[in-house]
Amino acid sequence: MAERKQRPRGDRTRARLLDAARAEFAQHGFGGASTRGIAERAGISASALYAHHRSKEELLFLIAKEGHESALHGMQRVLATQTGPGAQFVGVMRALSAGHAREQFVSHVLANELDSLSPQHFAEVAAVRRAMVGLVRAIIDRGVELELFESPQIDMTVTALFSLCVDVARWYRPDGRWTPEEIGDHFALLGLRMLNASPEVIDAAFAAG
Amino acid sequence: MAERKQRPRGDRTRARLLDAARAEFAQHGFGGASTRGIAERAGISASALYAHHRSKEELLFLIAKEGHESALHGMQRVLATQTGPGAQFVGVMRALSAGHAREQFVSHVLANELDSLSPQHFAEVAAVRRAMVGLVRAIIDRGVELELFESPQIDMTVTALFSLCVDVARWYRPDGRWTPEEIGDHFALLGLRMLNASPEVIDAAFAAG
Repeated sequence: MAERKQRPRGDRTRARLLDAARAEFAQHGFGGASTRGIAERAGISASALYAHHRSKEELLFLIAKEGHESALHGMQRVLATQTGPGAQFVGVMRALSAGHAREQFVSHVLANELDSLSPQHFAEVAAVRRAMVGLVRAIIDRGVELELFESPQIDMTVTALFSLCVDVARWYRPDGRWTPEEIGDHFALLGLRMLNASPEVIDAAFAAG
Repeated sequence: MAERKQRPRGDRTRARLLDAARAEFAQHGFGGASTRGIAERAGISASALYAHHRSKEELLFLIAKEGHESALHGMQRVLATQTGPGAQFVGVMRALSAGHAREQFVSHVLANELDSLSPQHFAEVAAVRRAMVGLVRAIIDRGVELELFESPQIDMTVTALFSLCVDVARWYRPDGRWTPEEIGDHFALLGLRMLNASPEVIDAAFAAG
Protein backbone atom coordinates (compact mmCIF):
# COMPACT_ATOMS: atom_id res chain seq x y z
CA MET A 1 0.00 0.00 0.00
CA ALA A 2 2.77 2.39 0.88
CA GLU A 3 4.29 1.81 -2.51
CA ARG A 4 0.93 2.30 -4.21
CA LYS A 5 0.42 5.63 -2.55
CA GLN A 6 3.91 6.76 -3.37
CA ARG A 7 3.86 5.89 -7.03
CA PRO A 8 1.15 8.33 -8.15
CA ARG A 9 2.95 11.14 -6.33
CA GLY A 10 6.19 10.17 -8.11
CA ASP A 11 4.33 10.11 -11.41
CA ARG A 12 2.89 13.56 -10.81
CA THR A 13 6.33 14.94 -10.00
CA ARG A 14 7.69 13.28 -13.11
CA ALA A 15 4.91 14.73 -15.30
CA ARG A 16 5.48 18.18 -13.77
CA LEU A 17 9.20 17.86 -14.43
CA LEU A 18 8.66 16.90 -18.06
CA ASP A 19 6.25 19.82 -18.54
CA ALA A 20 8.80 22.15 -16.96
CA ALA A 21 11.57 20.77 -19.18
CA ARG A 22 9.39 21.18 -22.30
CA ALA A 23 8.75 24.82 -21.39
CA GLU A 24 12.39 25.53 -20.55
CA PHE A 25 13.69 23.87 -23.76
CA ALA A 26 11.03 25.66 -25.83
CA GLN A 27 12.10 29.04 -24.46
CA HIS A 28 15.88 28.65 -24.39
CA GLY A 29 16.64 25.69 -26.68
CA PHE A 30 18.48 22.71 -25.27
CA GLY A 31 21.86 24.48 -25.14
CA GLY A 32 20.52 27.52 -23.29
CA ALA A 33 18.22 25.62 -20.88
CA SER A 34 19.42 25.07 -17.33
CA THR A 35 18.55 22.33 -14.86
CA ARG A 36 18.09 25.08 -12.28
CA GLY A 37 15.52 26.73 -14.56
CA ILE A 38 13.71 23.43 -15.05
CA ALA A 39 13.64 22.75 -11.29
CA GLU A 40 12.33 26.27 -10.62
CA ARG A 41 9.52 25.87 -13.17
CA ALA A 42 8.58 22.52 -11.63
CA GLY A 43 8.68 24.02 -8.13
CA ILE A 44 11.24 21.54 -6.81
CA SER A 45 14.84 21.85 -5.68
CA ALA A 46 17.70 21.13 -8.06
CA SER A 47 18.76 18.22 -5.85
CA ALA A 48 15.25 16.73 -6.06
CA LEU A 49 15.52 17.02 -9.84
CA TYR A 50 18.77 15.05 -9.80
CA ALA A 51 17.05 12.38 -7.72
CA HIS A 52 14.49 11.94 -10.52
CA HIS A 53 16.61 12.42 -13.62
CA ARG A 54 20.30 12.52 -13.98
CA SER A 55 20.53 15.33 -16.50
CA LYS A 56 18.99 17.71 -19.00
CA GLU A 57 19.85 15.08 -21.59
CA GLU A 58 17.66 12.47 -19.90
CA LEU A 59 14.75 14.91 -19.78
CA LEU A 60 15.21 15.70 -23.47
CA PHE A 61 15.23 11.97 -24.21
CA LEU A 62 11.99 11.33 -22.30
CA ILE A 63 10.27 14.22 -24.07
CA ALA A 64 11.59 13.14 -27.46
CA LYS A 65 10.56 9.54 -26.98
CA GLU A 66 7.05 10.43 -25.82
CA GLY A 67 6.63 12.99 -28.62
CA HIS A 68 7.74 10.61 -31.35
CA GLU A 69 5.74 7.67 -30.01
CA SER A 70 2.62 9.80 -29.78
CA ALA A 71 3.07 10.93 -33.41
CA LEU A 72 3.64 7.33 -34.54
CA HIS A 73 0.51 6.15 -32.73
CA GLY A 74 -1.51 8.90 -34.40
CA MET A 75 -0.32 7.66 -37.79
CA GLN A 76 -1.09 4.04 -36.88
CA ARG A 77 -4.64 5.07 -35.92
CA VAL A 78 -5.04 6.53 -39.43
CA LEU A 79 -3.91 3.25 -40.99
CA ALA A 80 -6.39 1.33 -38.85
CA THR A 81 -9.35 3.56 -39.77
CA GLN A 82 -8.71 4.42 -43.44
CA THR A 83 -8.68 2.12 -46.45
CA GLY A 84 -6.59 2.68 -49.56
CA PRO A 85 -3.32 4.58 -49.99
CA GLY A 86 -4.97 7.86 -51.07
CA ALA A 87 -7.11 8.29 -47.94
CA GLN A 88 -4.33 6.92 -45.70
CA PHE A 89 -1.84 9.36 -47.17
CA VAL A 90 -4.23 12.29 -46.61
CA GLY A 91 -4.75 11.12 -43.03
CA VAL A 92 -1.07 10.84 -42.11
CA MET A 93 -0.15 14.14 -43.80
CA ARG A 94 -2.95 15.85 -41.89
CA ALA A 95 -1.93 14.25 -38.58
CA LEU A 96 1.75 15.03 -39.00
CA SER A 97 1.51 18.63 -40.24
CA ALA A 98 -1.37 19.72 -37.98
CA GLY A 99 0.37 17.96 -35.07
CA HIS A 100 3.55 19.99 -35.63
CA ALA A 101 1.45 23.16 -35.49
CA ARG A 102 -0.45 22.17 -32.33
CA GLU A 103 2.67 20.97 -30.51
CA GLN A 104 4.79 23.68 -32.04
CA PHE A 105 7.33 24.41 -29.35
CA VAL A 106 8.22 20.92 -28.35
CA SER A 107 8.22 19.82 -32.02
CA HIS A 108 10.67 22.59 -32.81
CA VAL A 109 13.05 21.47 -30.08
CA LEU A 110 12.75 17.83 -31.14
CA ALA A 111 13.39 18.64 -34.78
CA ASN A 112 16.58 20.51 -33.99
CA GLU A 113 18.16 19.28 -30.78
CA LEU A 114 18.31 15.51 -31.08
CA ASP A 115 22.06 15.72 -31.70
CA SER A 116 22.29 16.56 -28.00
CA LEU A 117 21.09 13.06 -27.04
CA SER A 118 23.51 10.34 -25.99
CA PRO A 119 24.18 7.80 -28.79
CA GLN A 120 21.99 5.18 -27.09
CA HIS A 121 19.09 7.58 -26.49
CA PHE A 122 19.41 8.93 -30.00
CA ALA A 123 19.20 5.38 -31.36
CA GLU A 124 15.95 4.75 -29.46
CA VAL A 125 14.30 7.90 -30.79
CA ALA A 126 15.68 7.29 -34.29
CA ALA A 127 14.05 3.86 -34.26
CA VAL A 128 10.62 5.45 -33.67
CA ARG A 129 11.36 7.97 -36.39
CA ARG A 130 12.32 5.19 -38.81
CA ALA A 131 9.00 3.48 -38.03
CA MET A 132 7.18 6.70 -38.97
CA VAL A 133 9.11 7.01 -42.22
CA GLY A 134 8.53 3.32 -42.95
CA LEU A 135 4.80 3.73 -42.42
CA VAL A 136 4.57 6.62 -44.90
CA ARG A 137 6.85 4.80 -47.32
CA ALA A 138 4.62 1.69 -47.20
CA ILE A 139 1.53 3.77 -48.04
CA ILE A 140 3.35 5.35 -50.98
CA ASP A 141 4.70 1.99 -52.22
CA ARG A 142 1.17 0.58 -52.20
CA GLY A 143 -0.04 3.66 -54.11
CA VAL A 144 2.72 3.21 -56.68
CA GLU A 145 1.79 -0.47 -57.02
CA LEU A 146 -1.83 0.53 -57.70
CA GLU A 147 -0.59 3.22 -60.13
CA LEU A 148 -2.17 5.97 -58.05
CA PHE A 149 1.20 7.58 -57.21
CA GLU A 150 4.46 8.02 -59.10
CA SER A 151 7.71 9.72 -58.15
CA PRO A 152 11.37 9.49 -59.13
CA GLN A 153 13.73 9.37 -56.12
CA ILE A 154 10.96 8.19 -53.80
CA ASP A 155 13.26 8.25 -50.76
CA MET A 156 14.00 11.93 -51.28
CA THR A 157 10.32 12.64 -51.86
CA VAL A 158 9.54 10.98 -48.50
CA THR A 159 12.24 13.13 -46.89
CA ALA A 160 10.63 16.20 -48.49
CA LEU A 161 7.16 15.21 -47.22
CA PHE A 162 8.48 14.93 -43.66
CA SER A 163 10.34 18.22 -44.15
CA LEU A 164 7.12 19.98 -45.05
CA CYS A 165 5.34 18.68 -41.94
CA VAL A 166 8.22 19.08 -39.48
CA ASP A 167 9.03 22.62 -40.61
CA VAL A 168 5.49 23.73 -39.72
CA ALA A 169 6.77 23.92 -36.13
CA ARG A 170 9.23 26.63 -37.25
CA TRP A 171 6.88 28.96 -39.13
CA TYR A 172 3.42 28.32 -37.64
CA ARG A 173 1.89 31.18 -35.63
CA PRO A 174 -1.11 30.43 -33.37
CA ASP A 175 -2.48 33.90 -34.21
CA GLY A 176 -1.57 33.52 -37.89
CA ARG A 177 -3.61 33.12 -41.05
CA TRP A 178 -4.16 29.35 -41.03
CA THR A 179 -5.46 26.84 -38.49
CA PRO A 180 -3.66 23.54 -37.97
CA GLU A 181 -6.55 21.87 -39.84
CA GLU A 182 -6.21 24.17 -42.86
CA ILE A 183 -2.48 23.48 -42.94
CA GLY A 184 -3.17 19.74 -42.71
CA ASP A 185 -5.60 19.83 -45.64
CA HIS A 186 -3.38 21.92 -47.88
CA PHE A 187 -0.25 19.90 -47.12
CA ALA A 188 -2.13 16.68 -47.88
CA LEU A 189 -3.01 18.17 -51.29
CA LEU A 190 0.56 19.33 -51.93
CA GLY A 191 1.85 15.89 -50.94
CA LEU A 192 -0.53 14.13 -53.34
CA ARG A 193 0.60 16.46 -56.11
CA MET A 194 4.27 15.72 -55.30
CA LEU A 195 3.36 12.07 -55.86
CA ASN A 196 1.81 12.96 -59.23
CA ALA A 197 -1.67 11.83 -58.14
CA SER A 198 -4.33 12.65 -60.75
CA PRO A 199 -7.20 15.05 -59.90
CA GLU A 200 -9.51 12.01 -59.69
CA VAL A 201 -7.21 10.23 -57.23
CA ILE A 202 -6.92 13.43 -55.18
CA ASP A 203 -10.70 13.94 -55.06
CA ALA A 204 -11.29 10.32 -54.05
CA ALA A 205 -8.61 10.51 -51.34
CA PHE A 206 -10.19 13.60 -49.76
CA ALA A 207 -13.74 12.24 -50.12
CA ALA A 208 -12.76 9.08 -48.22
CA GLY A 209 -10.39 10.79 -45.72
CA MET B 1 47.96 56.12 -45.97
CA ALA B 2 47.84 55.10 -42.31
CA GLU B 3 44.06 54.74 -42.57
CA ARG B 4 44.35 52.71 -45.75
CA LYS B 5 46.75 50.30 -44.16
CA GLN B 6 44.62 49.99 -41.07
CA ARG B 7 41.31 49.34 -42.78
CA PRO B 8 42.21 46.04 -44.41
CA ARG B 9 43.53 44.77 -41.10
CA GLY B 10 40.21 45.77 -39.43
CA ASP B 11 38.32 44.03 -42.24
CA ARG B 12 40.37 40.89 -41.79
CA THR B 13 39.68 40.87 -38.05
CA ARG B 14 36.02 41.42 -38.75
CA ALA B 15 35.90 38.57 -41.27
CA ARG B 16 37.74 36.30 -38.82
CA LEU B 17 35.28 37.27 -36.08
CA LEU B 18 32.27 36.50 -38.27
CA ASP B 19 33.76 33.14 -39.27
CA ALA B 20 34.41 32.37 -35.60
CA ALA B 21 30.85 33.39 -34.66
CA ARG B 22 29.41 31.23 -37.48
CA ALA B 23 31.38 28.23 -36.20
CA GLU B 24 30.46 28.87 -32.55
CA PHE B 25 26.74 29.35 -33.33
CA ALA B 26 26.75 26.26 -35.57
CA GLN B 27 28.21 24.13 -32.79
CA HIS B 28 26.30 25.46 -29.78
CA GLY B 29 23.30 27.32 -31.21
CA PHE B 30 22.84 30.97 -30.35
CA GLY B 31 21.73 30.31 -26.77
CA GLY B 32 24.69 28.07 -25.97
CA ALA B 33 27.34 30.12 -27.78
CA SER B 34 29.61 32.34 -25.67
CA THR B 35 31.42 35.53 -26.64
CA ARG B 36 34.48 34.06 -24.95
CA GLY B 37 34.24 31.02 -27.25
CA ILE B 38 33.91 33.27 -30.30
CA ALA B 39 36.92 35.37 -29.23
CA GLU B 40 39.00 32.23 -28.65
CA ARG B 41 38.14 30.82 -32.08
CA ALA B 42 39.06 34.16 -33.68
CA GLY B 43 42.31 34.27 -31.71
CA ILE B 44 41.56 37.64 -30.10
CA SER B 45 40.83 38.75 -26.55
CA ALA B 46 37.26 39.13 -25.34
CA SER B 47 37.87 42.87 -24.84
CA ALA B 48 39.03 43.19 -28.46
CA LEU B 49 35.80 41.47 -29.48
CA TYR B 50 33.76 44.02 -27.58
CA ALA B 51 35.70 46.79 -29.34
CA HIS B 52 34.50 45.40 -32.69
CA HIS B 53 30.99 44.23 -31.87
CA ARG B 54 28.90 44.93 -28.85
CA SER B 55 27.35 41.52 -28.42
CA LYS B 56 26.60 38.02 -29.67
CA GLU B 57 23.35 39.49 -30.96
CA GLU B 58 25.19 41.91 -33.23
CA LEU B 59 27.33 39.10 -34.62
CA LEU B 60 24.21 37.01 -35.29
CA PHE B 61 22.67 40.00 -37.06
CA LEU B 62 25.70 40.53 -39.31
CA ILE B 63 25.78 36.84 -40.23
CA ALA B 64 22.01 36.74 -40.82
CA LYS B 65 22.04 39.86 -42.96
CA GLU B 66 24.95 38.66 -45.09
CA GLY B 67 23.44 35.16 -45.45
CA HIS B 68 20.02 36.42 -46.49
CA GLU B 69 21.41 39.06 -48.87
CA SER B 70 23.65 36.51 -50.51
CA ALA B 71 20.67 34.14 -51.02
CA LEU B 72 18.57 37.00 -52.43
CA HIS B 73 21.34 38.00 -54.85
CA GLY B 74 21.60 34.39 -56.03
CA MET B 75 17.88 34.41 -56.81
CA GLN B 76 18.14 37.78 -58.58
CA ARG B 77 20.93 36.37 -60.76
CA VAL B 78 18.55 33.56 -61.80
CA LEU B 79 15.89 36.10 -62.77
CA ALA B 80 18.43 38.04 -64.83
CA THR B 81 19.65 34.99 -66.74
CA GLN B 82 16.49 32.89 -67.21
CA THR B 83 13.39 33.71 -69.24
CA GLY B 84 9.92 32.46 -68.43
CA PRO B 85 8.40 31.42 -65.08
CA GLY B 86 9.13 27.69 -65.53
CA ALA B 87 12.88 28.06 -65.98
CA GLN B 88 13.06 30.87 -63.41
CA PHE B 89 11.23 28.73 -60.87
CA VAL B 90 13.58 25.80 -61.46
CA GLY B 91 16.55 28.15 -61.04
CA VAL B 92 15.43 29.68 -57.74
CA MET B 93 14.38 26.32 -56.27
CA ARG B 94 17.78 24.90 -57.20
CA ALA B 95 19.64 27.91 -55.76
CA LEU B 96 17.67 27.95 -52.53
CA SER B 97 17.64 24.23 -51.72
CA ALA B 98 21.20 23.47 -52.84
CA GLY B 99 22.34 26.64 -51.02
CA HIS B 100 20.82 25.41 -47.76
CA ALA B 101 22.74 22.14 -48.18
CA ARG B 102 26.07 23.83 -48.99
CA GLU B 103 25.77 26.41 -46.20
CA GLN B 104 24.12 23.91 -43.89
CA PHE B 105 25.30 25.01 -40.49
CA VAL B 106 24.84 28.73 -40.79
CA SER B 107 21.49 28.17 -42.58
CA HIS B 108 20.32 26.04 -39.72
CA VAL B 109 21.16 28.73 -37.16
CA LEU B 110 19.53 31.43 -39.29
CA ALA B 111 16.36 29.40 -39.77
CA ASN B 112 15.92 28.86 -36.06
CA GLU B 113 17.54 31.64 -34.05
CA LEU B 114 16.28 34.88 -35.58
CA ASP B 115 13.97 35.38 -32.60
CA SER B 116 17.15 36.20 -30.68
CA LEU B 117 17.69 39.36 -32.77
CA SER B 118 16.72 42.79 -31.47
CA PRO B 119 13.43 44.03 -32.99
CA GLN B 120 15.28 46.48 -35.25
CA HIS B 121 17.79 43.90 -36.47
CA PHE B 122 15.02 41.36 -36.96
CA ALA B 123 13.11 43.88 -39.07
CA GLU B 124 16.15 44.39 -41.33
CA VAL B 125 16.61 40.66 -41.92
CA ALA B 126 12.86 40.13 -42.31
CA ALA B 127 12.84 42.77 -45.06
CA VAL B 128 15.40 40.76 -47.06
CA ARG B 129 13.39 37.60 -46.43
CA ARG B 130 10.22 39.32 -47.65
CA ALA B 131 12.07 40.32 -50.82
CA MET B 132 12.97 36.64 -51.38
CA VAL B 133 9.38 35.52 -50.84
CA GLY B 134 8.14 38.34 -53.09
CA LEU B 135 10.52 37.27 -55.85
CA VAL B 136 9.28 33.66 -55.78
CA ARG B 137 5.69 34.83 -55.52
CA ALA B 138 6.11 37.06 -58.60
CA ILE B 139 7.45 34.13 -60.64
CA ILE B 140 4.47 32.01 -59.58
CA ASP B 141 1.96 34.78 -60.26
CA ARG B 142 3.37 35.16 -63.78
CA GLY B 143 3.11 31.38 -64.25
CA VAL B 144 -0.51 31.41 -63.08
CA GLU B 145 -1.23 34.29 -65.49
CA LEU B 146 0.22 32.24 -68.34
CA GLU B 147 -1.77 29.19 -67.14
CA LEU B 148 1.43 27.21 -66.56
CA PHE B 149 0.88 26.99 -62.77
CA GLU B 150 -2.19 26.63 -60.57
CA SER B 151 -2.57 26.33 -56.81
CA PRO B 152 -5.24 27.04 -54.21
CA GLN B 153 -3.94 28.96 -51.18
CA ILE B 154 -0.92 30.26 -53.10
CA ASP B 155 0.50 32.01 -50.02
CA MET B 156 0.62 28.73 -48.11
CA THR B 157 2.13 26.97 -51.12
CA VAL B 158 4.90 29.59 -51.19
CA THR B 159 5.44 29.02 -47.47
CA ALA B 160 5.67 25.28 -48.16
CA LEU B 161 8.18 25.81 -50.98
CA PHE B 162 10.44 27.84 -48.67
CA SER B 163 9.93 25.19 -45.97
CA LEU B 164 11.21 22.48 -48.27
CA CYS B 165 14.34 24.45 -49.13
CA VAL B 166 15.09 25.81 -45.65
CA ASP B 167 14.62 22.44 -43.96
CA VAL B 168 17.37 20.94 -46.13
CA ALA B 169 19.79 22.55 -43.65
CA ARG B 170 18.31 20.33 -40.91
CA TRP B 171 18.48 16.93 -42.62
CA TYR B 172 21.25 17.23 -45.21
CA ARG B 173 24.39 15.16 -44.59
CA PRO B 174 27.57 16.00 -46.54
CA ASP B 175 28.39 12.27 -46.60
CA GLY B 176 24.77 11.33 -47.37
CA ARG B 177 23.06 9.90 -50.42
CA TRP B 178 22.42 13.07 -52.41
CA THR B 179 24.57 15.97 -53.54
CA PRO B 180 23.28 19.55 -53.17
CA GLU B 181 22.76 19.55 -56.97
CA GLU B 182 20.61 16.38 -56.88
CA ILE B 183 18.55 17.88 -54.08
CA GLY B 184 18.15 21.10 -56.08
CA ASP B 185 16.92 19.22 -59.17
CA HIS B 186 14.47 17.02 -57.29
CA PHE B 187 13.07 19.88 -55.23
CA ALA B 188 12.57 21.94 -58.38
CA LEU B 189 10.53 19.03 -59.78
CA LEU B 190 8.50 18.63 -56.57
CA GLY B 191 7.86 22.38 -56.53
CA LEU B 192 6.60 22.37 -60.12
CA ARG B 193 4.30 19.47 -59.24
CA MET B 194 3.00 21.35 -56.18
CA LEU B 195 2.08 24.12 -58.64
CA ASN B 196 0.24 21.58 -60.83
CA ALA B 197 2.57 22.15 -63.78
CA SER B 198 1.92 19.70 -66.65
CA PRO B 199 4.62 17.23 -67.74
CA GLU B 200 5.19 19.43 -70.83
CA VAL B 201 5.67 22.57 -68.73
CA ILE B 202 8.04 20.65 -66.42
CA ASP B 203 10.10 19.31 -69.33
CA ALA B 204 10.34 22.76 -70.92
CA ALA B 205 11.34 24.35 -67.58
CA PHE B 206 14.21 21.89 -67.07
CA ALA B 207 15.31 22.07 -70.71
CA ALA B 208 15.63 25.85 -70.47
CA GLY B 209 16.92 25.95 -66.86
